[in-house]
Amino acid sequence: MCQGFKAAGICAGIKKNNIKDLGLIVSDVPASVAGVFTKNQIKAAPVLLDMERIKSGTCRAVIVNSGNANCCTGGQGMKDATRMAKAAADKLGVPEEMVLVSSTGVIGQALPVEKIESNIPQLFDALSPDGFLDFAESIMTTDKIPKKLSRTVKVAGKFFSLTGIAKGAGMIRPDMATMLSYVCTDVEADSSILKDLLADAVNLSFNRITIDGDTSTNDTVLLLANGKSGLSISNAPVKEAFKKALEEMLIELAKMVVKDGEGVTKLVELKIYGALSDNDAGKMADTVAHSNLVKTAFFGEDANWGRIIGALGRAGVSLNPDAIDISFNDVMLVKNGLWCGSEAETKATKVMKLSEFEVVIDVHLGSGAALCWTCDFSIDYVKINADYRS
Amino acid sequence: MCQGFKAAGICAGIKKNNIKDLGLIVSDVPASVAGVFTKNQIKAAPVLLDMERIKSGTCRAVIVNSGNANCCTGGQGMKDATRMAKAAADKLGVPEEMVLVSSTGVIGQALPVEKIESNIPQLFDALSPDGFLDFAESIMTTDKIPKKLSRTVKVAGKFFSLTGIAKGAGMIRPDMATMLSYVCTDVEADSSILKDLLADAVNLSFNRITIDGDTSTNDTVLLLANGKSGLSISNAPVKEAFKKALEEMLIELAKMVVKDGEGVTKLVELKIYGALSDNDAGKMADTVAHSNLVKTAFFGEDANWGRIIGALGRAGVSLNPDAIDISFNDVMLVKNGLWCGSEAETKATKVMKLSEFEVVIDVHLGSGAALCWTCDFSIDYVKINADYRS
Repeated sequence: MCQGFKAAGICAGIKKNNIKDLGLIVSDVPASVAGVFTKNQIKAAPVLLDMERIKSGTCRAVIVNSGNANCCTGGQGMKDATRMAKAAADKLGVPEEMVLVSSTGVIGQALPVEKIESNIPQLFDALSPDGFLDFAESIMTTDKIPKKLSRTVKVAGKFFSLTGIAKGAGMIRPDMATMLSYVCTDVEADSSILKDLLADAVNLSFNRITIDGDTSTNDTVLLLANGKSGLSISNAPVKEAFKKALEEMLIELAKMVVKDGEGVTKLVELKIYGALSDNDAGKMADTVAHSNLVKTAFFGEDANWGRIIGALGRAGVSLNPDAIDISFNDVMLVKNGLWCGSEAETKATKVMKLSEFEVVIDVHLGSGAALCWTCDFSIDYVKINADYRS
Repeated sequence: MCQGFKAAGICAGIKKNNIKDLGLIVSDVPASVAGVFTKNQIKAAPVLLDMERIKSGTCRAVIVNSGNANCCTGGQGMKDATRMAKAAADKLGVPEEMVLVSSTGVIGQALPVEKIESNIPQLFDALSPDGFLDFAESIMTTDKIPKKLSRTVKVAGKFFSLTGIAKGAGMIRPDMATMLSYVCTDVEADSSILKDLLADAVNLSFNRITIDGDTSTNDTVLLLANGKSGLSISNAPVKEAFKKALEEMLIELAKMVVKDGEGVTKLVELKIYGALSDNDAGKMADTVAHSNLVKTAFFGEDANWGRIIGALGRAGVSLNPDAIDISFNDVMLVKNGLWCGSEAETKATKVMKLSEFEVVIDVHLGSGAALCWTCDFSIDYVKINADYRS
């Protein structure tokens, strides 16, 4: 268990149907904090507020609502985000700048901030070291399952822990923080070191996933470290162990986000090798991972490699059409740009029936490589997003 | 009627179910020709062949098959494309370089070129000045309706004509020729002038449409001019009238392609105003037009402007969040980045129930503008593309 942190998630009536929509994480002591925020130029009010407040490098709590994104809400939106944080800060007895805030849900409608204020007592009553699953539930939108991971790591006979929470499940694309995620740890760390570690880990995880190629206006990843374990990151083995644990946790959370993506039935790990540079490989991965034709073929369990080749060809990078290999798990379906025949296709089609599989592409030009996770594109994705607000 | 051109479309057994899959256009005399081809780095064999042959600026015929793209077929593919053209050239009694060739359909399977060769007599027997509708049918893949337009223009007491054909309906995105299209005219024109006119007209039409954001490996637009009308483009009023007629025809064909796009129920004209530059406006148009979240909201007839704002924000251009206006036809739904209220939304929702409507976005930064046509993204799109090869 992550020492010195408590969390809660309750129903405040922001969403319909009496489901959890208000969450809180509190550290017993001031925690070092680092954040990664959406690169979308349209940023929700809570994102703008957090970006300002996080400069101090310290916070005590994070309050989050689902059901309303508090985005495109003008000056009123910023007032509401500030009020939401202040309500938690007042109850906690700390300066309001020590509380961060996130919102997720529909864009462009006024935040019902009174509902949040009036539920502050219940929210604090619910705080518990075991409250992270409730918290994870309270920040869900179209997610089907709450996403929470915990891990304890032993270094030199002592222990530190991390607890991570994330929510998806639409407006997900790489190179953006892409959703809400919070990681608490009882390691002791300076916020500037946390910032570097978080940026690196996000690049290996949340920046490598895509569901629909859209980027949210509210994406936020926060890392809070309160030092309660007695282990400090200034100690090299601790830093090493923490870095590894953080990366693994964010990769795992990122994959959970994709698997629980809107309408997703398949998680596909896409590996590109042999590009002229890692940058080229990244462009190819991005183009294939976003292709609606590739993704609908995944859904149809159709080893339609022509669509993969077509996507590679429009990635805007160097390519030799006669030197492209494509495998599904260990089944090579395309060799030197040509089909390996119907036996290989039968085997590849069998691979595609799995709920998780790899697509490995080698373009034989150099040593550039990239890895990302994508998913299929299903009838349910369209249903969910055609009906989302109704 | 376009003088001196004949066309045909027959069933050669390349597709299942006894439907037309082999088409031919023949000019009675050598025609000047210009072409625009896919920018995808993976180019089908017929595209590579045409790109070489079109350098001469002249051709007599175009032979086209559907049901097989003859792409990713290696050296055999190029041999088959050449054989297909030669079969038509031999029958016509012209050098094989005078025949161009296109293929469309599934990628990566060998072209059944013998079926084409053995059907050459029937194909030529079917040639007729009225055969363009049969031709339009023979090049369809997932298109539901054949796309053919004819127009006659009067200049200085004389007449010239154009006949245009196009096929869609998936792998459609802007900045690429995006499908197959053929325009025949009896104007007399030099191929170098035709090339400029075609490039300009494609930029205003086929490069402004999107269905699914994927780019085909086979995209081709050809413009053939045989001079049979006696009107020459070296005459300024003729050139002016032809330029206008060509642009209007390609825009109309492009809109037909979108309307008949896979699973499409709505054609949306997207207008961007007030960008810092036309280039910036183009990027915004492109991002909004491709957003799956925006397109599923169109399908759901949901005036979910937050998704439009979200897409604008990730277009990678300058934007002032507090100076964005969004209208659906003449209903302003967002003013200065804020929602205009439920009455406006009710009206906007009514607009969205139309099968064609405009979305007008003004970002109030400068005088840059862009126009494009997009569509909704439906359950049927996914169904069609999950099942396409089976």
